[in-house]
Amino acid sequence: MKKLNVGLIGYGFMGRAHSNAYRKVNNFFDLECQPVLKAACARSEDKVRPFAAKWGYESVETDWRKLVQREDIELIDICTPNNTHAEIATAAAKAGKMILCEKPLSMDGPEGKRMVAAVEKAGVANMVWYNYRRVPAVTFAKQLIDEGRLGRIYHYRAKFLQDWTINPDLPQGGTGLWRLDVKAAGSGVTGDLLAHCIDTAIWLNGGIDKVNAMTETFVKERKHNLTGKVEKVGIDDACAFLARFGNGSLATFESTRYARGHKALYTFEINGEHASIFWDLHDLHRLQYFDHRDQGPVRGWRSIHVTDGEHPYMGKWWVPGLQIGYEHSFVHQVADFLQGLTNGKPASPTFRDALETQYVCDAVLKSAKSGKWEKVAKVK
Amino acid sequence: MKKLNVGLIGYGFMGRAHSNAYRKVNNFFDLECQPVLKAACARSEDKVRPFAAKWGYESVETDWRKLVQREDIELIDICTPNNTHAEIATAAAKAGKMILCEKPLSMDGPEGKRMVAAVEKAGVANMVWYNYRRVPAVTFAKQLIDEGRLGRIYHYRAKFLQDWTINPDLPQGGTGLWRLDVKAAGSGVTGDLLAHCIDTAIWLNGGIDKVNAMTETFVKERKHNLTGKVEKVGIDDACAFLARFGNGSLATFESTRYARGHKALYTFEINGEHASIFWDLHDLHRLQYFDHRDQGPVRGWRSIHVTDGEHPYMGKWWVPGLQIGYEHSFVHQVADFLQGLTNGKPASPTFRDALETQYVCDAVLKSAKSGKWEKVAKVK
Amino acid sequence: MKKLNVGLIGYGFMGRAHSNAYRKVNNFFDLECQPVLKAACARSEDKVRPFAAKWGYESVETDWRKLVQREDIELIDICTPNNTHAEIATAAAKAGKMILCEKPLSMDGPEGKRMVAAVEKAGVANMVWYNYRRVPAVTFAKQLIDEGRLGRIYHYRAKFLQDWTINPDLPQGGTGLWRLDVKAAGSGVTGDLLAHCIDTAIWLNGGIDKVNAMTETFVKERKHNLTGKVEKVGIDDACAFLARFGNGSLATFESTRYARGHKALYTFEINGEHASIFWDLHDLHRLQYFDHRDQGPVRGWRSIHVTDGEHPYMGKWWVPGLQIGYEHSFVHQVADFLQGLTNGKPASPTFRDALETQYVCDAVLKSAKSGKWEKVAKVK
Amino acid sequence: MKKLNVGLIGYGFMGRAHSNAYRKVNNFFDLECQPVLKAACARSEDKVRPFAAKWGYESVETDWRKLVQREDIELIDICTPNNTHAEIATAAAKAGKMILCEKPLSMDGPEGKRMVAAVEKAGVANMVWYNYRRVPAVTFAKQLIDEGRLGRIYHYRAKFLQDWTINPDLPQGGTGLWRLDVKAAGSGVTGDLLAHCIDTAIWLNGGIDKVNAMTETFVKERKHNLTGKVEKVGIDDACAFLARFGNGSLATFESTRYARGHKALYTFEINGEHASIFWDLHDLHRLQYFDHRDQGPVRGWRSIHVTDGEHPYMGKWWVPGLQIGYEHSFVHQVADFLQGLTNGKPASPTFRDALETQYVCDAVLKSAKSGKWEKVAKVK
Repeated sequence: MKKLNVGLIGYGFMGRAHSNAYRKVNNFFDLECQPVLKAACARSEDKVRPFAAKWGYESVETDWRKLVQREDIELIDICTPNNTHAEIATAAAKAGKMILCEKPLSMDGPEGKRMVAAVEKAGVANMVWYNYRRVPAVTFAKQLIDEGRLGRIYHYRAKFLQDWTINPDLPQGGTGLWRLDVKAAGSGVTGDLLAHCIDTAIWLNGGIDKVNAMTETFVKERKHNLTGKVEKVGIDDACAFLARFGNGSLATFESTRYARGHKALYTFEINGEHASIFWDLHDLHRLQYFDHRDQGPVRGWRSIHVTDGEHPYMGKWWVPGLQIGYEHSFVHQVADFLQGLTNGKPASPTFRDALETQYVCDAVLKSAKSGKWEKVAKVK
Repeated sequence: MKKLNVGLIGYGFMGRAHSNAYRKVNNFFDLECQPVLKAACARSEDKVRPFAAKWGYESVETDWRKLVQREDIELIDICTPNNTHAEIATAAAKAGKMILCEKPLSMDGPEGKRMVAAVEKAGVANMVWYNYRRVPAVTFAKQLIDEGRLGRIYHYRAKFLQDWTINPDLPQGGTGLWRLDVKAAGSGVTGDLLAHCIDTAIWLNGGIDKVNAMTETFVKERKHNLTGKVEKVGIDDACAFLARFGNGSLATFESTRYARGHKALYTFEINGEHASIFWDLHDLHRLQYFDHRDQGPVRGWRSIHVTDGEHPYMGKWWVPGLQIGYEHSFVHQVADFLQGLTNGKPASPTFRDALETQYVCDAVLKSAKSGKWEKVAKVK
Repeated sequence: MKKLNVGLIGYGFMGRAHSNAYRKVNNFFDLECQPVLKAACARSEDKVRPFAAKWGYESVETDWRKLVQREDIELIDICTPNNTHAEIATAAAKAGKMILCEKPLSMDGPEGKRMVAAVEKAGVANMVWYNYRRVPAVTFAKQLIDEGRLGRIYHYRAKFLQDWTINPDLPQGGTGLWRLDVKAAGSGVTGDLLAHCIDTAIWLNGGIDKVNAMTETFVKERKHNLTGKVEKVGIDDACAFLARFGNGSLATFESTRYARGHKALYTFEINGEHASIFWDLHDLHRLQYFDHRDQGPVRGWRSIHVTDGEHPYMGKWWVPGLQIGYEHSFVHQVADFLQGLTNGKPASPTFRDALETQYVCDAVLKSAKSGKWEKVAKVK
Repeated sequence: MKKLNVGLIGYGFMGRAHSNAYRKVNNFFDLECQPVLKAACARSEDKVRPFAAKWGYESVETDWRKLVQREDIELIDICTPNNTHAEIATAAAKAGKMILCEKPLSMDGPEGKRMVAAVEKAGVANMVWYNYRRVPAVTFAKQLIDEGRLGRIYHYRAKFLQDWTINPDLPQGGTGLWRLDVKAAGSGVTGDLLAHCIDTAIWLNGGIDKVNAMTETFVKERKHNLTGKVEKVGIDDACAFLARFGNGSLATFESTRYARGHKALYTFEINGEHASIFWDLHDLHRLQYFDHRDQGPVRGWRSIHVTDGEHPYMGKWWVPGLQIGYEHSFVHQVADFLQGLTNGKPASPTFRDALETQYVCDAVLKSAKSGKWEKVAKVK
């Protein structure tokens, strides 16, 4: 079994999710390659040591630059705030390392474009962790679409609703809260949540031509954890936009962290000429499917429990009827990445794929300011 | 248009439901006959007068015997407590009136048998108001079964759950509460709620051979509204039973008025070799349907919104997507009854059909006492 | 009991829904006034005669101008295509008749404004049939909001999805299909479906300041039933828009007749600081409610079965757990209208209330052309 | 960190589920002890070698007797067919090993009793893998009950429905199919599926006094994989029973492998005086909860998404809104077992706890034969 030495930067939520994926993937998937947890890296040695111990990393680093230069490291996994992705990824590419980067790829499109150039120049394998593509029900949706079951697409609608920042006393910035700090995150729900919706949408329904958006920041000032001062909030708390896809379909997208009762309600629905599909992250193991070609009186939305052996990835897990969860999407992504290394077909989304999402986000934020339709830049 | 003069006895919940049905049926159904609200009857003139005025009855009576003898009355509708059904129905039959009788038919099987004999001897049209057969989703279930879609049936399960008698301070007996008084009701949930479940079951799945039951009375004593005294409660608050159908399928039935959170949750599920069906009174306009012959990976329970023109009865109402409700099942029953008069095919359930349910109830109550399997008497 | 003589124009879907409401309202509601079905009117005598017979109208007319002048008619009910509302309503107002007009009020805002002026000058009672306000679950939502349970509102989202015009062979124009003919309908889904969404939204969440919309006509040409020729389709098949309410909340609205699997899926969701509400026309008897003030671990969306006596209007119908349906919203509207006549508090939405919706529709259609935010005119 | 050397017998579905749990538990839970995958054991070396390689077992054995005697093994995990549990467990106990045994504990009560005696005499830690207790929503249900939220319990109902053996061509016996072979399994759905339902029921609602059951074998003969001959099927394909709990509540239990459309639909519902609870394995991350003490009109079943940090076990995993799945129940069970070793409070269900379920199963099977109520033996 070939080994692949991983150096992971960041020990937070995503650091855990990725570590778990590396540890599990070979127990369930038959692969020719096995990730080795070689080194974990974070600025604070106090924090990275227990993390490494808990997950079985063989060593720790406190300077990512040093990690990137280590000869025994073959793959750099970037789990740090958005404003650090570009610098780390560029250095890792120069050092000839493969790179798995957390989403969103970059702070904006131009930065993302430079990152794409860096990895492509270096010729290193690269991927962005848009993990929801590999929730089995979502992958299954892709299959159904690719089989032509939906026919011409008329509508796409997606939303990602949360409610965790309604409390105005919640501070911004620093560990666990950098997503509220525009300097670290670049944007609010647009880069954090809508980026997921856009990535899935492009994958399932093709490119987006133009968008028309609005954003809002409901809580205008919050205490900043790093400065200790009350500061203006720079991120978007909510964002909604209209869009037109290249295939002629119309779309609505919406995201907010001010929707009481929703923790992580990512949903999408696609209406085609012959069939429709609906999915919901709160019940991620189900796909709702309506097929107009069913006999008239017995037509109905089917609630497909995506847990059979013939459903994507599910043959690797348990038995029909038994759910897997959120974390498994990361395992699938690692499995596909490793398979891509073996068979020479890079797993998506590569940096280049993820750049397209970045361009949509740019157009969205631009439109929210201009108040009019904005075209989405094309990835060349 | 032929007229059919109705004399209705009882002004309660069912008196209203039936009156509404008579008034509406010709607005929606094309029939050769039209019910006329000729007379309403109740012991209390103070109560029957405003009822008659509200619903447009042309006259009132305070003695059902007199009503039954009136020459201008062609049909007697019995909406009185269970312990009065037999006497009224027998007298009405003798007077040559058609009879529509509220469910359950009788206090027990032998009484029911005499009622069947009376109407059949008199040769008068007769029917029992087991209205749930005519909820469109239930009628549609019957169609699917009759088309052979389910194949061999393995399982039937039904329940009817309520929670309105949990409060021990609720009295028994008298207006609005006679269902808690064993003398008026004959039994508790068995005759009131399970009778519905059994009627549907026999209609959908054929005869029941034997049963094994348990009953319970959770609140042993309640104040009686007629005597003013605290008296022993004679009804069953809850009843559950196992059953074996003639077609070899196994069944569980359960009913209670002590299931917090359920107002009138009548549900049934049928599992066949090829397909399964589920229905629920709390969402009575939907039928859940699973068909194993669907292509493997897209199999799922279909939530059929039974509101299309091609669904039973629905072509008479509004447009697809718009629900009808509980009351419409009574309109359908009147429509079918009137059509039966015209075409000579009596609408079911006749008294004879309803007697079968009575025999099952008898066996259930007997088994609850004997603690063993009891055979169900056959309707000859 | 005071009588109110009704003259109804139009015998289609709405003619039936209103007739049913007039016939039923006094059976269930205690009112001081009773509608009398005095005359039904339509151009074709062949069609209006059987309609009148079926519903019990005492007479028929084939010229609405004549009906409007009849002295025995006190109320004119307009159930004709949108392009006839203004002329009929104006004439009826001049003749001193009360007017109940189907929605949308008018072909556009300016026309609607003239209609408001006409009825207000004449001093006649007037109302528009935005019936969904009186679905008990929707009325209950209004109560919860008025009680302040939601707190500051952040988001409103509504959609109305259908799928009945996907087939390109469906013709436009004429009986049953005038909604596809821009000359008769004024617009497509905007005036037909979004008007409902907007009416409810304004009622629940206050006025809308500005909108940003897109529309699409998927099938560009259809045979016209009146001319027999294939003609350009002038209506919008789909419309989506962003909006900002006066109270600072953000909204998305969407409607289409190209959403496979949805017959009449009108849904709205409101996210407030403390609580959220969701409703869905396909299960109109339920209200989903999430209250953040519930104790943390047992927080969850409550599926409220709006069938209890203490829920709006429901005390008039059956017993808890038993659904009513679509048609009952019209009964409630008549009941409230009649009560308004008695107590001097006109039932909403009056023509003036409905004009506000018209102005929003105008801004939506304008924005769809201009590609930018458009302000909504204020009703003065 | 203390190490705990595990020897696992059996490499099937459960062998994988347990191995996964041992490997993951310390990544997510803070424990003083860490399982070490010391040896995997199975009769076939060809099968156990790749299993051991895949999961990282340090060694393999092909004779469980040898494994049980190995000095470096501290814990024996039994994942073999039911008819081998007793012999292995007894030998392991004699050898002083801790024992984790798959459910059901034994072939019947008397055998189970001997196993309890063996482990208690040896004084070794022991537990049975009734994993559903540790699905967070189920554990949460237990918390709500223990807090007294439900009040007096009236009803308990559970079912476990599958559909995987409907095809009569499915053989019995041997690898993957031993559950259809009465010699290996002892019984059919009773020991396999109802045992789970009974274990949860006893845990949540206390002891069961007596039962009244029926069983059925729909397919009477199947080819046997080990003999190659068509043989009589000895297991129960379906089993339903009525029960009475010690606390006075009534229950229905049902299980089958002939319910089309259900893969592993384990559900239970508890109706108490004040509140009710419903859970469903097909959406295992949700708990349905109805509390009558909520204010009247806003009462409704709450769909609790059991993914918050304050829900049982969930603080160890991801963030609110993100599901875990089936496999995590095993991780939780290992975590609790290890914690029990540390704090001296043995995690349940111990062999003794599991014996109670065995006695209920015995009474159920006896009643199915006798056709009458059978008392459940008490664990002394």
